Amino acid sequence: MIAVTILGNNSAVPAYGRHPTAQVVQTREQFFLVDCGEGTQMRMDQHKIRRSKINHIFISHLHGDHYFGLIGLLNSYGLNKRENALHIYAPEGLEHVIKIQLALAEAHLPYPLHFYNLNEEGIILEDEKILVSTFKVNHRIPCFGFLFKEKKFPRKLNIAEVKKLNVPKEFYENLHYGEDYVLPDKTVISNEQLTFPVLPPRSYAYCADTAYFENICNSIHGVDLIYHESTYLNELSAKASARFHSTAKDAAMIAKKSNAGRLLLGHFSSMYEDLSEFEKEAREIFENTEASVEGTCYVA
Amino acid sequence: MIAVTILGNNSAVPAYGRHPTAQVVQTREQFFLVDCGEGTQMRMDQHKIRRSKINHIFISHLHGDHYFGLIGLLNSYGLNKRENALHIYAPEGLEHVIKIQLALAEAHLPYPLHFYNLNEEGIILEDEKILVSTFKVNHRIPCFGFLFKEKKFPRKLNIAEVKKLNVPKEFYENLHYGEDYVLPDKTVISNEQLTFPVLPPRSYAYCADTAYFENICNSIHGVDLIYHESTYLNELSAKASARFHSTAKDAAMIAKKSNAGRLLLGHFSSMYEDLSEFEKEAREIFENTEASVEGTCYVA
Repeated sequence: MIAVTILGNNSAVPAYGRHPTAQVVQTREQFFLVDCGEGTQMRMDQHKIRRSKINHIFISHLHGDHYFGLIGLLNSYGLNKRENALHIYAPEGLEHVIKIQLALAEAHLPYPLHFYNLNEEGIILEDEKILVSTFKVNHRIPCFGFLFKEKKFPRKLNIAEVKKLNVPKEFYENLHYGEDYVLPDKTVISNEQLTFPVLPPRSYAYCADTAYFENICNSIHGVDLIYHESTYLNELSAKASARFHSTAKDAAMIAKKSNAGRLLLGHFSSMYEDLSEFEKEAREIFENTEASVEGTCYVA
Repeated sequence: MIAVTILGNNSAVPAYGRHPTAQVVQTREQFFLVDCGEGTQMRMDQHKIRRSKINHIFISHLHGDHYFGLIGLLNSYGLNKRENALHIYAPEGLEHVIKIQLALAEAHLPYPLHFYNLNEEGIILEDEKILVSTFKVNHRIPCFGFLFKEKKFPRKLNIAEVKKLNVPKEFYENLHYGEDYVLPDKTVISNEQLTFPVLPPRSYAYCADTAYFENICNSIHGVDLIYHESTYLNELSAKASARFHSTAKDAAMIAKKSNAGRLLLGHFSSMYEDLSEFEKEAREIFENTEASVEGTCYVA
């Protein structure tokens, strides 16, 4: 299960109580922050997300509405005496901006801070539970999407069956990962007989900011949940293209061509107070669409 | 009359719905922003202050809780197609930080942006209505206070009297500024007879962040309203000194020695939820004290 809490779903200028981009992606006791617009640390407080749980931060690009809240968050971590390492994945240049500001304040963070420059597509983080990869989107300056894929959950042992058939303990790990067991007399016992099924691994893709860009579909094909920017409605598609942004229709096309399970819209222009037209426009192409709401946790 | 609206009165880490430092000083149709902590542009929206009215921004020092909201505000001005020049007064280094971030975003502001480095004490802004000067306070890094002094209002003409005595029009300006009028027969007509009194000019001093520092009293002597930081209560005076901050008692001592009219406390540590003890402690030394409340407009 992947849970995405929207902290900010507006485009650059805050409006109608909506804030610049930030969201928290949660899976199997890990919390990831994706983008960090101004005020993100306050939004975390507001929505009861513990800042200290975040160890990895992904910044899509260096337009300010996606990172101006980062320096304040790093600063607060320091004042709160954080000790755990923090890992930041961002296009080149961010490390310099952060370090200049720390130097001006003569501030020394009490925790290790690691920067990783985003350049190429591919895997940027992997552990036994999750795989995070990045892919290029199409914006005015270099901009990256992120794909979070849970790894297969280990199947749960059916202890009664396992003991009845005297499966040796050293084979348990193989059972967790789906192997059948062969008895000494060569009888094959199917894995299904010895284990219980678990939830299938889930996936989530974050795509903002970007013009309509079909390459994305290859990178995220079959994703369970996609957040795709939709700054404008289709009536302003020329403006959207000119500014390397998408319309609700564009987002729905990408979701459809990606064979995604569900679409979340966001990064709404400050022109729009009512967002119902975004849902209406997108649903004509991709039914399972919602206009994201700040503070709401969406589960893939 | 000078009106001060508090947008943020907390120290660095936001807590209890209190925010990092920012305030708007308003006098005679001019709006000045003093410090600009993260989220200041959102606080302006919240408290119905029109961002576009601000043409001068004063930044006391380069600890982030006093300026991390500036780049977002400048960016929003750009997106909102601001054309009026904006003037920023700050310690050296801020211009570099701002310009790097604009360059990374390949952003070009559509309005002129002027930086003035704070170095020496003295007048930094003057026009026919207001005089703004800066003075040094005592913090871990270079930090400046600001004194806003209204200039004398022109007295209002008593038109009936002026006409009765045939005062020539070219002398009206002299009457506005308090001169007596001498009749052709050498009779002196007092200014009071020819004009109506106006409100006396008012003054406001902003002092944050600083340790207890008596030099301030000379710079602001007789000020009508003083905002002075009080990060801690006196029980933590050693901690306050070590961190170049003040206690409520320190702030009250400065107000008293400055012969100030009224004291506003702010920059409260995130340790404290209830602020009533701050008022109590300060009032033992300086009765006319209030713990500032965000969103409230205080009038000097």
